[in-house]
Amino acid sequence: MKRIDWSSLDAAARADCLARPGGGDQAEVEAAVRRVFEQVRADGDTALRALTRRFDGVEIADFAVTPEEFEAARAQLPAKLRVALAEARSRLVTWHRAGMAAEFEVDTAPGVRCGRLLRPIPRVGLYVPAGTAPLPSTALMLGVPAELAGCADVVLCTPPRADGTADPAVLVAAALCGITRVFKLGGAQAIAAMAFGTPTLPRCDKLFGPGNRYVTAAKQLAAMLAGGPAIDMPAGPSEVLVIADAGAPPAHVAADLLSQAEHGPDSQVILVTDSAALIDAVEAEVARQLAELPREAIAQRALEHARLMRVSDIGEAFAISNAYAPEHLILALRQPRTWLDRVASAGSVFLGDYAPESLGDYCSGTNHVLPTNGAARAWSGVSVASFQTSISVQEVSREGLAAIGPCAVEIARAEGLEAHAQAVLRRLEAQA
Amino acid sequence: MKRIDWSSLDAAARADCLARPGGGDQAEVEAAVRRVFEQVRADGDTALRALTRRFDGVEIADFAVTPEEFEAARAQLPAKLRVALAEARSRLVTWHRAGMAAEFEVDTAPGVRCGRLLRPIPRVGLYVPAGTAPLPSTALMLGVPAELAGCADVVLCTPPRADGTADPAVLVAAALCGITRVFKLGGAQAIAAMAFGTPTLPRCDKLFGPGNRYVTAAKQLAAMLAGGPAIDMPAGPSEVLVIADAGAPPAHVAADLLSQAEHGPDSQVILVTDSAALIDAVEAEVARQLAELPREAIAQRALEHARLMRVSDIGEAFAISNAYAPEHLILALRQPRTWLDRVASAGSVFLGDYAPESLGDYCSGTNHVLPTNGAARAWSGVSVASFQTSISVQEVSREGLAAIGPCAVEIARAEGLEAHAQAVLRRLEAQA
Repeated sequence: MKRIDWSSLDAAARADCLARPGGGDQAEVEAAVRRVFEQVRADGDTALRALTRRFDGVEIADFAVTPEEFEAARAQLPAKLRVALAEARSRLVTWHRAGMAAEFEVDTAPGVRCGRLLRPIPRVGLYVPAGTAPLPSTALMLGVPAELAGCADVVLCTPPRADGTADPAVLVAAALCGITRVFKLGGAQAIAAMAFGTPTLPRCDKLFGPGNRYVTAAKQLAAMLAGGPAIDMPAGPSEVLVIADAGAPPAHVAADLLSQAEHGPDSQVILVTDSAALIDAVEAEVARQLAELPREAIAQRALEHARLMRVSDIGEAFAISNAYAPEHLILALRQPRTWLDRVASAGSVFLGDYAPESLGDYCSGTNHVLPTNGAARAWSGVSVASFQTSISVQEVSREGLAAIGPCAVEIARAEGLEAHAQAVLRRLEAQA
Repeated sequence: MKRIDWSSLDAAARADCLARPGGGDQAEVEAAVRRVFEQVRADGDTALRALTRRFDGVEIADFAVTPEEFEAARAQLPAKLRVALAEARSRLVTWHRAGMAAEFEVDTAPGVRCGRLLRPIPRVGLYVPAGTAPLPSTALMLGVPAELAGCADVVLCTPPRADGTADPAVLVAAALCGITRVFKLGGAQAIAAMAFGTPTLPRCDKLFGPGNRYVTAAKQLAAMLAGGPAIDMPAGPSEVLVIADAGAPPAHVAADLLSQAEHGPDSQVILVTDSAALIDAVEAEVARQLAELPREAIAQRALEHARLMRVSDIGEAFAISNAYAPEHLILALRQPRTWLDRVASAGSVFLGDYAPESLGDYCSGTNHVLPTNGAARAWSGVSVASFQTSISVQEVSREGLAAIGPCAVEIARAEGLEAHAQAVLRRLEAQA
């Protein structure tokens, strides 16, 4: 972990300090993903089988999970975990439902009624990673809003395990959200399959979910295809920024930093505080707690590019946080709610000493699929709205056309679009 | 225009019939855009000047529009047009404001309060095309929701005219929305400038606006940059699908088809009806009205790939429309509102004989920046939400953590993430 005194840095050093770790050659990742796309487009299921053999080291005859596999997963899963998944799901339903948009109508002029319809995206493709660990929580995070939006066709891809089966917890989580079409397929090939469609997998209208750099690059490439699918966001390596004051318990802050660091070597961990004593205490706690973790080696590597920043006051910490736009922002402050107005860009915010990030990861009710790498400046976490389209509607009476038609004619002619003007004028003449 | 009897087509012919016109070599467009990006990234403003000289045929020393230029534009614009723009703006404000999302909070468990904050995207870049015609209406369509969202920094690019000035109507429309930072810069180079930033133009968090194939490809390429800007949508050539019954006035339907066709040779125009007589009458009307249009040649070329489709009943017309997912959908039906439930995918819907598309283009209040090329299956038109991020928040008390913490621990351990479990357990222990 690197200790930084913010006031001692010049502008260039500050920018450098907030930069994400590069993490390998992006051009190489893109080129590899392009090759996968070409293969899948050309050879469909045959390519998927070959790529799965190569990248997952397993031979899959049929990618679709059968009803029997779902049943076996349910039987095999510890009851306590099944209950926990159902409990998490129910809070996810509460929060996501409370945030659903509404249709509306408003008269913008007498006889001109304009509104908005909401519709589920017809066919959505969910990606649930299972790299160093399978993520049943991600199946819930994507499955719940898809279910609430009412998407008619929900497809879920998750990488096969070495024995050719899917992770049972992922299957149970999917089933809890009413998802029956699960495919044992991972990586860029899963994204390509859902983008193009194959005889086995349907072509999807929008792709969702986090993933490694290949999956993220594949989603971005899919979004560039003419007539291709939309994507939820470019969700890359996970990150946390903790703003803490002198009153924050060092053991809790350290635990939060470590829970982020254990995700992967490219995870981003930042502490910003006005207390030098807290930095000392957190550093000692991290060392102590790290030694007890099963994923110590991974966390250790992530901590190499972690930063402990000292600022002169907490207000400055928010300026740093907004410039960085973290995926997760923990406010380990005495009166955290009073600082909320200062948050301009972040994925999800955790208030106070009893709100570890892991609650948001699993079961507070908010969504854990969040923008990373500074994307929180312009993107939002997944919600029901991510699975809907909104369609504008205008209903205009004769009187309405008489009221607003001349305005349209004036602007149409200024733009040199006479046929636009005529579409109004012919109707007005027909009334006269 | 091609007459089609839908029932006579097999599945392949139907798919072919709903395909968008390809329109040139996409790979060539992408390669050209990549070259522009490399130039702008390497040479900043110098590259922008060279590209403007080459593509717009004009030498621009300073891209920024000065206060004097704004003042001259205002003085020069006909009063009637200024009034029309202000009138259009006021209805846009009404509709967009009525559709704004709200922040919310909900208790997902005792002591667990979860909510959503809304924040303006800090810096947004708007693109207002001015190819065959300048589009002040687009400045309003992007400027109004940016203003309502409260974006702190709004940048607008629009191509320079041959004399090096910006279109006065575009400047007046921008000023009406409080936009003061306008740059005389067009095409892929404008998108590159807003994506990377140059000494003159700031780097933007999200890019908005319609454009030609180069602009659209540039936006998609910008969205692929690691840490690059978000985009509103891939908005390509404009399109309309009209569903009409035997009672629809042929002259109005023809006028609507023509107002779409005059946009450009790659515009898409489709009529779907259960009435063969209507097809005959519309065809005759199109021929008659076309001859009177100043943009006859452009419309003529668009009409070459227009389609007049006969279906056996109106229900079938909606199945076709949903498969096609048109940008604009006109329901020239006797009881149009009763059919709204059938609309699954479309950008904007126009109800009845007095709602020409040009009202939505200019002044009904809805937004005219809409998804094209089938993107309406997964994307929505621009709204205030397009200029906001939503940030989730969780505030958890001691009791809240005791209530939901064990659920998080259970799932964390199933995912092999012990540090996630520890972040909960250490806090629970501290309480005991």
